[in-house]
Amino acid sequence: MEWINKSRILIVGLGLMGGSYAMALKRIGYHVDAVDKDEGAIRYALDKGIIDEGAVSPSKELIGSADTVIFALYPGLIIPWIKDNQKFFKPGITITDVTGIKNNIVYKIQDILRKDVEFIAAHPMAGREISGVTGADGSIFRDANYIVVPTERNTDRAIKWCSDLGGILGCRKVSVLTPQEHDRMIAYVSQLTHCIAVALMTCNDNEKLVDYTGDSFRDLTRIARINEDMWSELFLMNKKELLHEMDAFLDELKTIREYIDKEDTDALKDKMRLSTKRRERFNR
Amino acid sequence: MEWINKSRILIVGLGLMGGSYAMALKRIGYHVDAVDKDEGAIRYALDKGIIDEGAVSPSKELIGSADTVIFALYPGLIIPWIKDNQKFFKPGITITDVTGIKNNIVYKIQDILRKDVEFIAAHPMAGREISGVTGADGSIFRDANYIVVPTERNTDRAIKWCSDLGGILGCRKVSVLTPQEHDRMIAYVSQLTHCIAVALMTCNDNEKLVDYTGDSFRDLTRIARINEDMWSELFLMNKKELLHEMDAFLDELKTIREYIDKEDTDALKDKMRLSTKRRERFNR
Repeated sequence: MEWINKSRILIVGLGLMGGSYAMALKRIGYHVDAVDKDEGAIRYALDKGIIDEGAVSPSKELIGSADTVIFALYPGLIIPWIKDNQKFFKPGITITDVTGIKNNIVYKIQDILRKDVEFIAAHPMAGREISGVTGADGSIFRDANYIVVPTERNTDRAIKWCSDLGGILGCRKVSVLTPQEHDRMIAYVSQLTHCIAVALMTCNDNEKLVDYTGDSFRDLTRIARINEDMWSELFLMNKKELLHEMDAFLDELKTIREYIDKEDTDALKDKMRLSTKRRERFNR
Repeated sequence: MEWINKSRILIVGLGLMGGSYAMALKRIGYHVDAVDKDEGAIRYALDKGIIDEGAVSPSKELIGSADTVIFALYPGLIIPWIKDNQKFFKPGITITDVTGIKNNIVYKIQDILRKDVEFIAAHPMAGREISGVTGADGSIFRDANYIVVPTERNTDRAIKWCSDLGGILGCRKVSVLTPQEHDRMIAYVSQLTHCIAVALMTCNDNEKLVDYTGDSFRDLTRIARINEDMWSELFLMNKKELLHEMDAFLDELKTIREYIDKEDTDALKDKMRLSTKRRERFNR
């Protein structure tokens, strides 16, 4: 793998995901640097040995010594960062990201990027319901799915390189999707689920319910602890696909509601049989 | 505890819950019998040492030797069973159940029950997304919540006895609710969550998505594997409360949908902050 010869990785944005990448990559021998405007995050990561070197502002030295750059910033910050700092990139490198939406940013990044540098998008389907480098965990990628999201401008070499990165992180399954396919999928499996969890938590003043709940409620609301800045940005950047999935879900739940109201047991059982059958595919 | 002196327990209905009760109680030294019309379930439980004695039809001997009876039948089957077999109950015993709804059955049971026998309702907030005695697991009660659901006809002695049973099973927290309070709570934390999981699974033809999903989708759909006979019965028996909670959730999700559509980031973030704050209470 080409990766083995690349020794120096720069993580831009040292939050939960950036820190988790750093831990996973340093553990297998890479030299990992990071840049983040939060001095506390950099100091924490240096103290804990999560990174080798760090800085609060991008410098020619740190960026110029990187054999690859991984963006783990909020989606809206990536393009300004590249505009400001791409002049420092080592010639010919390949760079990637971890962002949860693609269509709205990948083409823009490729439009503005230096012609000798290749950006190949990726999305590891891993995370935690907390944020910040103090929650970083290099093992979150283990058994996770990893999606490489090339455009028609990407080279086969970069697609292979990025797929290898997924394997290096420990991901179980690496897939390749177009930005459109990725965003449609993510609207359903990730963004809709977060909207549901939030609505379930906020639709009922449930203060006293903690003594009564079972695991179902805990499972369905785990992701109701949510980073409001990041997720509101992700939702709005994928608005069309997300609204489409929310409408499909709302219609389906209204249908089930009508079956209960009309006491149409046969139709209700049909839905449950379908959901049981479909869920079996997702068992590990 | 009065329980220690009671040696012989009869489980009526040997499915997942009945089997799990049997395992938890036999493990700490109780003599546990079971009656279930499914001969395979009885044979399996005898072979595995889950029960001491079992029968496919209720007999005077088996019922008459029981110091307590625990109903783990589908809700609609309990009253006919009691009508047919209560003549065999040992005089003066206290009996209980595990049923997921209360208002619709508890008063009816107490109406028809022999005057020397006391029925005290209970609901362990534990389970698994599979059914049948082959999935029984005596440890599902560990750290679970347990609800005792008395009516005004119940004695303090029976409430205490039933609370002790929750502790004996290993439950973490035992609470007492009225049937109305229980059913309102259960409509929200359990029935609504199951409806959501089913709708999430059936609203999108997701056959190819298994390679892309993260833990969020898996968590929100774990309970989409559902016993359609039992849950459709539970939903219809608690229809009014369930429809009320479904409507509250549908309204809330529609509100969030409108915030996204209008790009009202402030309102969206407020909802997320509220959900994050509320979810913190439910952390273990």
